[in-house]
Amino acid sequence: MAGVFTVTRVLRFADCDPAGIAFYPRLLEHVNNLVEDWFAGPLECSFHDLHFKRNKGLPTVTVNVNFLRPAELGDEIDWSLSVKALNRSSMTLSVRAKRPDGEELLHAEPTLVHSDFTRDPPRSEPFPDELREKIETYQDPQ
Amino acid sequence: MAGVFTVTRVLRFADCDPAGIAFYPRLLEHVNNLVEDWFAGPLECSFHDLHFKRNKGLPTVTVNVNFLRPAELGDEIDWSLSVKALNRSSMTLSVRAKRPDGEELLHAEPTLVHSDFTRDPPRSEPFPDELREKIETYQDPQ
Amino acid sequence: MAGVFTVTRVLRFADCDPAGIAFYPRLLEHVNNLVEDWFAGPLECSFHDLHFKRNKGLPTVTVNVNFLRPAELGDEIDWSLSVKALNRSSMTLSVRAKRPDGEELLHAEPTLVHSDFTRDPPRSEPFPDELREKIETYQDPQ
Amino acid sequence: MAGVFTVTRVLRFADCDPAGIAFYPRLLEHVNNLVEDWFAGPLECSFHDLHFKRNKGLPTVTVNVNFLRPAELGDEIDWSLSVKALNRSSMTLSVRAKRPDGEELLHAEPTLVHSDFTRDPPRSEPFPDELREKIETYQDPQ
Repeated sequence: MAGVFTVTRVLRFADCDPAGIAFYPRLLEHVNNLVEDWFAGPLECSFHDLHFKRNKGLPTVTVNVNFLRPAELGDEIDWSLSVKALNRSSMTLSVRAKRPDGEELLHAEPTLVHSDFTRDPPRSEPFPDELREKIETYQDPQ
Repeated sequence: MAGVFTVTRVLRFADCDPAGIAFYPRLLEHVNNLVEDWFAGPLECSFHDLHFKRNKGLPTVTVNVNFLRPAELGDEIDWSLSVKALNRSSMTLSVRAKRPDGEELLHAEPTLVHSDFTRDPPRSEPFPDELREKIETYQDPQ
Repeated sequence: MAGVFTVTRVLRFADCDPAGIAFYPRLLEHVNNLVEDWFAGPLECSFHDLHFKRNKGLPTVTVNVNFLRPAELGDEIDWSLSVKALNRSSMTLSVRAKRPDGEELLHAEPTLVHSDFTRDPPRSEPFPDELREKIETYQDPQ
Repeated sequence: MAGVFTVTRVLRFADCDPAGIAFYPRLLEHVNNLVEDWFAGPLECSFHDLHFKRNKGLPTVTVNVNFLRPAELGDEIDWSLSVKALNRSSMTLSVRAKRPDGEELLHAEPTLVHSDFTRDPPRSEPFPDELREKIETYQDPQ
């Protein structure tokens, strides 16, 4: 059974624009925050360790986003993540943002590449086995 | 002949992450800045007027981005924009970021909807004719 | 006895700069987030209601900050707030950020003015009584 | 005679908050951008070289800011900088933001410390002579 990683966050003043709704680049910051929390939590590999101890990183190489409905200041948003595709050194995630009333706000599919940052430019590198095994438990069965 | 709107900007410290490269949500902020400059410049409709005088806005409803190569602190980046598709109240843009050596950094296709912000949620509304005519001159002939 | 409002937050990748430490304008965003949480929580006046229902706001008119030690990616930070001075329509807060080991990272004193945003520019306006009474319970006795 | 370093920038949509005015942490990002432009320009020491070639940095250790009037979306802002105090390894800058009509928006005094980032935490280090000589030409005579 596929795991789904979920966190809840209130949409902040700092995330909103003069139109009073979420500024979309800030919603993508939330997508990145969600991945960061997933790594620091169940994947047991904080971004601090990933970048500064392992000299690796996870650059996003593509992202496709549908903004389904404007997110508003103060909205309590459920962010959820599962793994749509897992390859040797990359993965495509399925990220959804919902309000408590079930209204979907956003669906994003970022593709991230596990990379060696001792190279310039960074070079893709297979996920280490212990990390891959944890990622697999979030894989979408479709 | 299709026009292309172009601006050049240096990638800033504020745009970069602990990996020393552009933080991708900040690159999407640059995409938004490019649209803002296009509106304030050749389209003669500043975001100040659009939002506060006309009570309209341009929410992004989808965006697909390919990050082709990491952008680095201090990179001088040429941002260019043309119109891929123009509909009654929405348009899909083609945005490219290149370094001076011709290396492509990013290709983004955001779809923006001209919307009436006196409605909650904002409701799509056809582009006014004078704006549409100016937008058409940036349409990609493909 | 003076109340102190406290929240704990991990310093994120999005908050850090190419030097691998917190980018200082982002720490001020955290100061603003702390005030936002204080209002939405114990003061029972969310920024959504303040701005969109009451047409008020809290522009910061001065801020003095000492950055005592660099905050690092992944640091668990305790943010605390008390009221240093409360006037008719303004207040000066004392905000401190500490790591769990007690190391102080930051001390900020922002002064915020309760303002009527139906005026342009916004005009200062006394805090309403029920809000003032709640704010007083966070006043520093010194 | 003291030099003053000046750049002009339009206040962007991305800089503004739901109250329709500049979000103050973003104004401090502009202060940082101004220092970055000063270093890359007349001081001939880009932040890219400073951080990645020299392994130095310029953490801000204190900043005092007066926000004199709200900055609005689309405001053309003149940012200017001079050196208020120059010490062996630190300097205090005087930064002012004005609108074209002469209206002052902001006065900030950040103190920055030239630091060696090969140390953890970074350790202060005297400015190299060629950099100090260029900085001196921006020193305020008062």
